[in-house]
Amino acid sequence: MTQHRIRIDDPTDPRFDDVRDLNRSDAADRRLVIAEGNLVVGRLLESRFPVRCVVGFPAKLDAFLEEHEIPDGVPVYEVTRETLAAVAGFDLHRGLLAAAHRAPETPLADILTTARTVAVLEGVGDHENIGSMFRNAAGMGVDAILFGNGCADPLYRRVVRVSMGHVLRTPFAHLEGSYTTWQRSLEQLREAGFHLVSLTPDPAAEHLADALAGREKVALLVGAEGPGLTEHAMRATDVRARIPMAPGTDSLNLATSAAIAFYERERSLR
Amino acid sequence: MTQHRIRIDDPTDPRFDDVRDLNRSDAADRRLVIAEGNLVVGRLLESRFPVRCVVGFPAKLDAFLEEHEIPDGVPVYEVTRETLAAVAGFDLHRGLLAAAHRAPETPLADILTTARTVAVLEGVGDHENIGSMFRNAAGMGVDAILFGNGCADPLYRRVVRVSMGHVLRTPFAHLEGSYTTWQRSLEQLREAGFHLVSLTPDPAAEHLADALAGREKVALLVGAEGPGLTEHAMRATDVRARIPMAPGTDSLNLATSAAIAFYERERSLR
Repeated sequence: MTQHRIRIDDPTDPRFDDVRDLNRSDAADRRLVIAEGNLVVGRLLESRFPVRCVVGFPAKLDAFLEEHEIPDGVPVYEVTRETLAAVAGFDLHRGLLAAAHRAPETPLADILTTARTVAVLEGVGDHENIGSMFRNAAGMGVDAILFGNGCADPLYRRVVRVSMGHVLRTPFAHLEGSYTTWQRSLEQLREAGFHLVSLTPDPAAEHLADALAGREKVALLVGAEGPGLTEHAMRATDVRARIPMAPGTDSLNLATSAAIAFYERERSLR
Repeated sequence: MTQHRIRIDDPTDPRFDDVRDLNRSDAADRRLVIAEGNLVVGRLLESRFPVRCVVGFPAKLDAFLEEHEIPDGVPVYEVTRETLAAVAGFDLHRGLLAAAHRAPETPLADILTTARTVAVLEGVGDHENIGSMFRNAAGMGVDAILFGNGCADPLYRRVVRVSMGHVLRTPFAHLEGSYTTWQRSLEQLREAGFHLVSLTPDPAAEHLADALAGREKVALLVGAEGPGLTEHAMRATDVRARIPMAPGTDSLNLATSAAIAFYERERSLR
């Protein structure tokens, strides 16, 4: 509440470097985590990611600091809308953001000790889909998200925003290996007692409800929109499951399919 | 196959008026239906909407005309990327679009005669959500979408695109009345034998699976993200249903909630 706020009006001030040129491909959010807006900055502060600075319009900081305690030693920079736009490279109408260090991932072994439901992604390059998946996973009790080969960075700014900050709360880990070898890591999930389920539009696959019924621990594998899971990945799983689709229609969006699977998983545990 | 193609290089040519300034709020897509890209233009041609013109880059038209027959009397305009960008007001990298008249809506009575599952929206102003809902409705066997008060235009260009053209195929109708009176139209659904189900995040509501079990005809009511359905609307339904959510998380995105309800509906009919 007695937070020391520093007013900065010079966009070239090096204290802004953590939040500079956020739309550039070499922007700070490749090294750091960037949170935007009251809700998500609040979740960043409660997360395992060590916050480096908070930046905001005076009124936005007032509102935020009424509800949140910022740790000692974390600078709070007060800026005008114009200054922040010049720093970030675009107009940040939410008027509040924060940068944090990238904390190490949760070790896979730790995740597998306690989790009952995990999602495993392969080749998912779309930030919005990954963000939606974290939001839906949190909402429907999925304990962790694991990344196979070829996925986009889950700590990218857009993912953080679309996930509503849940990527900062839900544990995740990357499974090692290339396009054709990462699937071997799935053996660790099987050894930990997980029933491995591939989601596929293949009409010959089992109905999702049957594939999930009566399982203690479940790993739901989801592939990229379009190509879907590789045959390599599907072979490494116990069952192929489909969401029934009307004839002549398109497959569902990736995040939507996953959300339905998360729902069915929760339903199977009733 | 012997389609007469007319090359036009002057962006001010009045024959382009149907597809001019597409990002402007008074653009043609308020009066017409605009379809973009091979898949969606193809669906427009198969739809009940009378096509007025097709516009495209030469190579895109070649590919399209190999697979589709364009009715006699519908002009096909061949354009360069630069010309089309000048006409539309932005770079249309898909290189193919078409405009159609807005055909009248399917009469509600016709919909209710044959439909077993309908979705009813209230206050849904987001084009992307409406588009996703049409895509998911088509994929999971929902027969029609009905619009209560305060919804955005379902034939807006962005809806057509996000729906992957399914808004051109799935019947829809608007229910008449104001914010507090449109709900009376729901009586017609009840008379037609529909079980009326409100989707709500309210933890006191019934589990979605229980609310849908064993019902012959179902109408799924969905409100806007944030406020949800009005109390007026919920009171006019038979049951309030919830998707179970983990404590302390945010409610699901509107289109995602609806997709889960569509899935559960299909599942209840197995």
